[in-house]
Amino acid sequence: MGPDERAIREVQSTWIDAVNAGDLVRLLTLMADDVLILTSGRAPLGRDEFSAVFLSGHKQARIICSRELEEVMVTGDVAYTWGRDSVSVTPIAGGKAMQLAGYALTVWRKQPDGRWVLAREANMVSPVAKL
Amino acid sequence: MGPDERAIREVQSTWIDAVNAGDLVRLLTLMADDVLILTSGRAPLGRDEFSAVFLSGHKQARIICSRELEEVMVTGDVAYTWGRDSVSVTPIAGGKAMQLAGYALTVWRKQPDGRWVLAREANMVSPVAKL
Repeated sequence: MGPDERAIREVQSTWIDAVNAGDLVRLLTLMADDVLILTSGRAPLGRDEFSAVFLSGHKQARIICSRELEEVMVTGDVAYTWGRDSVSVTPIAGGKAMQLAGYALTVWRKQPDGRWVLAREANMVSPVAKL
Repeated sequence: MGPDERAIREVQSTWIDAVNAGDLVRLLTLMADDVLILTSGRAPLGRDEFSAVFLSGHKQARIICSRELEEVMVTGDVAYTWGRDSVSVTPIAGGKAMQLAGYALTVWRKQPDGRWVLAREANMVSPVAKL
């Protein structure tokens, strides 16, 4: 494994930890300024829209996510990865946890300072009952 | 627009035309040997799985697809694009057309012979009623 692949796996792991900690400030340091997250059924999320959705979600539920990376492919200052997410969402007000799962395809970009950040992601997580 | 971006836009356009023509043979020439198409709710589709799904779909319905590319980003021999699909699916046996729409994030790869082929795609097309 080359140093870039190792760095991307570390950022990915930090990303998931920050999601689980509800740590938006940390997440924002791991994404490009022009980040776009594509999901089903709504417009692409930039930094501001992602922040609003993230804060609203973590206010309402305890969210625990894991991601198994299936592939990491680096070409110069750009890389793509894909993997499978498993997510449990437990309402803070009480009630049964919902299980979600699905694939994500991610484009990463190496910054001039050498750090890799998330630039584009298509995220297909959906309720497991639908599978 | 550089020659690689122009070539990718041409392959993308040919891809959509081949989908609309039900031309699987042509589609297979536009994808990498190890292609993977990620969708919601099922395992990634390789060439064989994609072929089965495509033929089955075109046996049951007239499928008309269009894609508006929002971004084309080329880095060496790899590129990514994303855009929005609109699809109408009209059952051949009769009945109302179903409208679908959604984003797709695609990774393209330049072959040793200079041709660009589709290598990875996350496709989030879903029924418009859900939006």
